[in-house]
Amino acid sequence: MQIYIHQTHHTIADFDEIFSYLEKLSKSSDFEGNIHIFPELFLTGYPLQDLCLQRDFINKYHILFTRIKDWWKDLNISSDTALLIGGLDYEFENDLPKSIENVVFELSNKENLKKVYTKQLLPNYDIFDEMKYFKPGSESKIWEFAGKKFGLLICEDMWHSAQYPVDPVKELQELANGQELNGIFNFSASPYNLGKEQTRLNRIAEISKCLNLPFYYVNRVGSEDEIVFDGGSLVHSQGEIKQKALSFTQDIISSPVEEASTVSNCEIPIIEAHSWESLFAPRLETRKEGTRLKELTDKDCEEILHALNIGIQDYTRKCGMNNFLVALSGGMDSALVIALLRLFLKEGQTIEAVYMPGQFSATLSWEISMKICKTLGIKLTTLPIKFLHSSVKNEFNQNFEAMEGLADENIQSRLRGALIYARSNQSGAMVLNTSNKSELSVGYSTLYGDSVGAISVLGDLYKSEVYTLARYINKKYNDIIPEEVITRPASAELRENQEDQHSLPPYEILDTILEGHLSYRYSKEDLIEMKLPQEDVAKTLRLCNISEYKRKQFCPIIKLKAKSFGFGRRMPICKKN
Amino acid sequence: MQIYIHQTHHTIADFDEIFSYLEKLSKSSDFEGNIHIFPELFLTGYPLQDLCLQRDFINKYHILFTRIKDWWKDLNISSDTALLIGGLDYEFENDLPKSIENVVFELSNKENLKKVYTKQLLPNYDIFDEMKYFKPGSESKIWEFAGKKFGLLICEDMWHSAQYPVDPVKELQELANGQELNGIFNFSASPYNLGKEQTRLNRIAEISKCLNLPFYYVNRVGSEDEIVFDGGSLVHSQGEIKQKALSFTQDIISSPVEEASTVSNCEIPIIEAHSWESLFAPRLETRKEGTRLKELTDKDCEEILHALNIGIQDYTRKCGMNNFLVALSGGMDSALVIALLRLFLKEGQTIEAVYMPGQFSATLSWEISMKICKTLGIKLTTLPIKFLHSSVKNEFNQNFEAMEGLADENIQSRLRGALIYARSNQSGAMVLNTSNKSELSVGYSTLYGDSVGAISVLGDLYKSEVYTLARYINKKYNDIIPEEVITRPASAELRENQEDQHSLPPYEILDTILEGHLSYRYSKEDLIEMKLPQEDVAKTLRLCNISEYKRKQFCPIIKLKAKSFGFGRRMPICKKN
Repeated sequence: MQIYIHQTHHTIADFDEIFSYLEKLSKSSDFEGNIHIFPELFLTGYPLQDLCLQRDFINKYHILFTRIKDWWKDLNISSDTALLIGGLDYEFENDLPKSIENVVFELSNKENLKKVYTKQLLPNYDIFDEMKYFKPGSESKIWEFAGKKFGLLICEDMWHSAQYPVDPVKELQELANGQELNGIFNFSASPYNLGKEQTRLNRIAEISKCLNLPFYYVNRVGSEDEIVFDGGSLVHSQGEIKQKALSFTQDIISSPVEEASTVSNCEIPIIEAHSWESLFAPRLETRKEGTRLKELTDKDCEEILHALNIGIQDYTRKCGMNNFLVALSGGMDSALVIALLRLFLKEGQTIEAVYMPGQFSATLSWEISMKICKTLGIKLTTLPIKFLHSSVKNEFNQNFEAMEGLADENIQSRLRGALIYARSNQSGAMVLNTSNKSELSVGYSTLYGDSVGAISVLGDLYKSEVYTLARYINKKYNDIIPEEVITRPASAELRENQEDQHSLPPYEILDTILEGHLSYRYSKEDLIEMKLPQEDVAKTLRLCNISEYKRKQFCPIIKLKAKSFGFGRRMPICKKN
Repeated sequence: MQIYIHQTHHTIADFDEIFSYLEKLSKSSDFEGNIHIFPELFLTGYPLQDLCLQRDFINKYHILFTRIKDWWKDLNISSDTALLIGGLDYEFENDLPKSIENVVFELSNKENLKKVYTKQLLPNYDIFDEMKYFKPGSESKIWEFAGKKFGLLICEDMWHSAQYPVDPVKELQELANGQELNGIFNFSASPYNLGKEQTRLNRIAEISKCLNLPFYYVNRVGSEDEIVFDGGSLVHSQGEIKQKALSFTQDIISSPVEEASTVSNCEIPIIEAHSWESLFAPRLETRKEGTRLKELTDKDCEEILHALNIGIQDYTRKCGMNNFLVALSGGMDSALVIALLRLFLKEGQTIEAVYMPGQFSATLSWEISMKICKTLGIKLTTLPIKFLHSSVKNEFNQNFEAMEGLADENIQSRLRGALIYARSNQSGAMVLNTSNKSELSVGYSTLYGDSVGAISVLGDLYKSEVYTLARYINKKYNDIIPEEVITRPASAELRENQEDQHSLPPYEILDTILEGHLSYRYSKEDLIEMKLPQEDVAKTLRLCNISEYKRKQFCPIIKLKAKSFGFGRRMPICKKN
């Protein structure tokens, strides 16, 4: 008997596809005689947010439920075959739902979609809102099947920390009390962030070792709006990884059921929660002591490429689109975005680039745009905005007053926003946003201008990380990004001789301040203590505070870090700064 | 001895203003010999979201805390003077915060900012996320002062329903157990929605009557981003309202402390939670059986005017702006917005209107825009987009292909978006968004086009309600809105003979479908059962589902209803529809 781990992805609420997966599995030669485990909420998708409250969704989900039951009844399965599947369990009262549990169902020749376990720890920090929707379980479960016994955990259940009243791992240990078990299952839908896989692996190894049991971990894979699931399902036993699924792609792994062993009485290792932040977002690293933002390693860059690939491709596919459109400026961010798209491009997909020079665009910008498109084999169209820009200026001169300063800068950016979307409407291609996390933080982008786009590719990477990633790509892929774009000073080119570094701290300082403020919630005083220049700290925090309104209207950002803009960071626009 | 109810508003984290309020109060003749009660989280503002986790905020809050303590120590107050003030109580461990409670502090000649009670019921549905941030209290409290006794409740504590494990009102009753009390205090920060005041009043009357005690209710007033607080503080005793503060403005009311009376042993009335929705958003009305959206009454319209006034004015002031800018189209929505602004205008503020006719703008649109601006005394500038539009078309013809269909419609809207923001950058006036809830629901607006704006005025009113409100205003304010704009068919004027009603169900049908779907989460089947046309239902729900991405990038909407777009409705963009 083997344990099959199904690392799957389906679009949220795509109940036909979900059913098809099970049906197809039942026809495979690996089906009978084995135990098959599936990710958390396999039957619905995750995160559902308010969708799980909508009656249309609930009705369709229950049609799936009945469909599976009817199908299973007729299958006549052997007594040594079972499926453990994550799904929702609705309790009804007078035909109206009363509560929802996040559970695991059993399909076997004894049980037909019987609930066997309810998730006990409901994460409610950062991007998580599970206490809004779900009722927690209150009982641990040792699942017995065909003479084997397994402890069950759903995702967060293995991450007990100070804010939770119970530790489901410890409860399993107590429940086992001298019994022999064959292992632990963890059914997850655990979002990706940089370094998360290692954190997860450490925790799995810790529990597996402590309890002296094999640990079977199954995780969801694929991308949902801003959140990426990286998979990384695995089997850990006797101090080592026995099997590991590929990350960032659907995969199935299997491993034989091992001999049962007595659950050890060890002390379950406690998750360290030193830092202030970690109490509210327990999986974030503890306070950094370094005075500069940690540079991305090659391994980090590789991971980020995978995450961005799946983040972009899943979003595009689910929006029913297939082609990409990028406004090239001759700057670092848009050059990196188009290089990434080229690397991620699938058969049948196209990329189109548009370069929209204005009055202050340097010749170098045009040369860089030409060069990168030539290297990558991408069609580039030049669409100057100078004439439109001067038409607007004339109209304003006549009707209002001379257009100068910020108005004159922003109109260029907004004309570009309008034109790129006109082209998108025409061609049906998706506009990728090119803003980076540094400029989003300090508000150095124009609302409805360069901030437009369906999804943000670089919105969770600081500008210094954008450069690191670009260099990594050039090293790995034969210098596909022109060197000039990496070395030239960053500029929005919206006025004469404009350079970011004339009005902002150097990026390595700026990004360190931002990372401290955003990820670790450091105060001005904390940052000054870290020997960051007082004036830079004050200016950066002020800019960050007053640009909340721009981020409010920003598109979803593919989440790469433990702390990102978007759903996991909720800040009032209006407040005393 | 009197109870003074301070219905206040301060910008979130404006600690100087908050301190000044207390200081000023201490110098007033009403100060000594009385009990003063303040809203929930008076010391910080509400809702704070992640702001309450930021160290800068925490540091500043604790400076206020120390400042109040030092000041109070030196005041030498009489033994019959006390303040009960809502605030946050942080628990620290190793100099790092460990948990946060939402509490009431006492200031008296015995206590100096002593925590006397912690909120027990933490709302976590719809716009509320209190379980994300706060640790609930577990004990009810009878507060004794100068020989008087009062039961304490914070906001949600009086709204026990099925999803909460305890009923703090019942606990107070049990705790009193034969004792005589002088009343109940409820410290609130209770957001406004249409009809909420009556719901609140009913609950207060119910509790006051049942327990046979005076009920002192103090609520926050003012607007925070999308949320309006209406105040409506009151004293309810012996079956009637003894005192009531003005709604939608700061106010102070007072009422003498009554003779103590024995707490009745009555059964605390249960809040009806029949409907499915009410389990997750307990204050929403139960399922509507009507086949058409309920029309706004004159009283509703009056309430909405107050809410929009405070919503717009507070947002504008807190953003550091003072003047308004509206793009008039000659249609109903922008006409209503500008009429509202004119009604709300304060001394020193200005409104400017811009009319941007395009190729398909009717003469009537120009006439209406002229007429309304003349009536309201507002400066109107005409800024045609025809020339820019044809320039863009020429450029596209040369570089891509002929611009037609959706691309040609949207570019007109986006050029207007760019121009109105150019004017805003030039004049420093705030752009008000003019979209209504019906068009937001079905995606009948252009992203970065007519969907631009700092804040949405009508985004929580269906189109049919927009008309009702316009008619109410005309009745009350001498027909300031031209009749032609109310009677002409709605059109985006982005192509020849375009009319909303050619491609959408009639508004009374559309809006009924939307209200059922959005507020009551009705399924297609539920709506068809309500005798709504099957085709209209299918089309409306489909449009609503596929336009989630537009709402994601929309500005804050002033919340007028129990269920609104924005923070209280969280829906994945990508899902199988």
